[in-house]
Amino acid sequence: MISTIEVSTNDRTELVDITSQVRKIVKDSGIDEGSCLVYVPHTTAAVTINENADPTVKRDILMILDRVIPFSDDYHHAEGNSAAHIKSTLVGSSERMIIRDGDLILGRWQGVFFCEFDGPRSRKVTIQMTPA
Amino acid sequence: MISTIEVSTNDRTELVDITSQVRKIVKDSGIDEGSCLVYVPHTTAAVTINENADPTVKRDILMILDRVIPFSDDYHHAEGNSAAHIKSTLVGSSERMIIRDGDLILGRWQGVFFCEFDGPRSRKVTIQMTPA
Amino acid sequence: MISTIEVSTNDRTELVDITSQVRKIVKDSGIDEGSCLVYVPHTTAAVTINENADPTVKRDILMILDRVIPFSDDYHHAEGNSAAHIKSTLVGSSERMIIRDGDLILGRWQGVFFCEFDGPRSRKVTIQMTPA
Repeated sequence: MISTIEVSTNDRTELVDITSQVRKIVKDSGIDEGSCLVYVPHTTAAVTINENADPTVKRDILMILDRVIPFSDDYHHAEGNSAAHIKSTLVGSSERMIIRDGDLILGRWQGVFFCEFDGPRSRKVTIQMTPA
Repeated sequence: MISTIEVSTNDRTELVDITSQVRKIVKDSGIDEGSCLVYVPHTTAAVTINENADPTVKRDILMILDRVIPFSDDYHHAEGNSAAHIKSTLVGSSERMIIRDGDLILGRWQGVFFCEFDGPRSRKVTIQMTPA
Repeated sequence: MISTIEVSTNDRTELVDITSQVRKIVKDSGIDEGSCLVYVPHTTAAVTINENADPTVKRDILMILDRVIPFSDDYHHAEGNSAAHIKSTLVGSSERMIIRDGDLILGRWQGVFFCEFDGPRSRKVTIQMTPA
């Protein structure tokens, strides 16, 4: 069972909380136990699981990523978005979660974030649910 | 089939080898071929696969992570554990392995490590095994 | 359904595009809908998904990784390849993709890369396909 979420980003780099959308898709699927893959089909974006209670966590993640992987550097890729490609590889293009009792197993503070590294853009996230 | 491991950590940052526990759960499940997801439901911890023969590998991983993502910095998150959140995003909250002939496929030097980035604490690791 | 790809690397660090090999294995499997796990059973290598149109992207990824995780440092692991172990943990030992209509769902610019961090060597990549 495969679904797609559309995400519109507003900044060059941005973490967008998509937890409630993923959760709704899981609940609507009617799957009681299984797994859920959240897959980003872009090479300058990613997906991560982290705290969604305090928005400063998102800001701090982006600050360190921007420092470790500068926007401008001795890059050879001519499109000017090498930093976004490198962040995508380090954060990763998918996350896998467990479905139990018809809902995602998430820790108390965990949320799912789409990671924009070369925005603003219109993006897609592909979600596959598999019954156990 | 879902199981939980309890992990007690002793240090602020620490890699705990959980390979034998995961392996036992896989063997006890009776699944001959399938997959195994090791999922960490915490936002200041992670899971990784790396060498478990020489313990200095763990130490070297933590050294570089602590340098790239300092404990103290211009963070906005007020709880003082931003570094742990960022490490969690970079290392990742899950690992997926293959089950074949009733056991995990692991390379000769590979082990599974719970990564504590904001300890010491009592932690949980959730493990889902799915038959092929 | 489990298959293995052999990869020969020529440099100390190198990204090898294995997209067409993974895709062929998926097509040959006859699975119409399901998922595909690409797993690297090595502790000094990894797998990532990124752009395979312009080869400078690979070069830029390796440049930043080499700077953030130097080959020589205050490492305790005596084999001289600590940097490779750390890169392996940050990039990750597996990638999961979705199979639909008998083929991988990949974004327009996405390819799958074996990441050599301690070459040159002969390596293996294990691929598991699971029907939905």
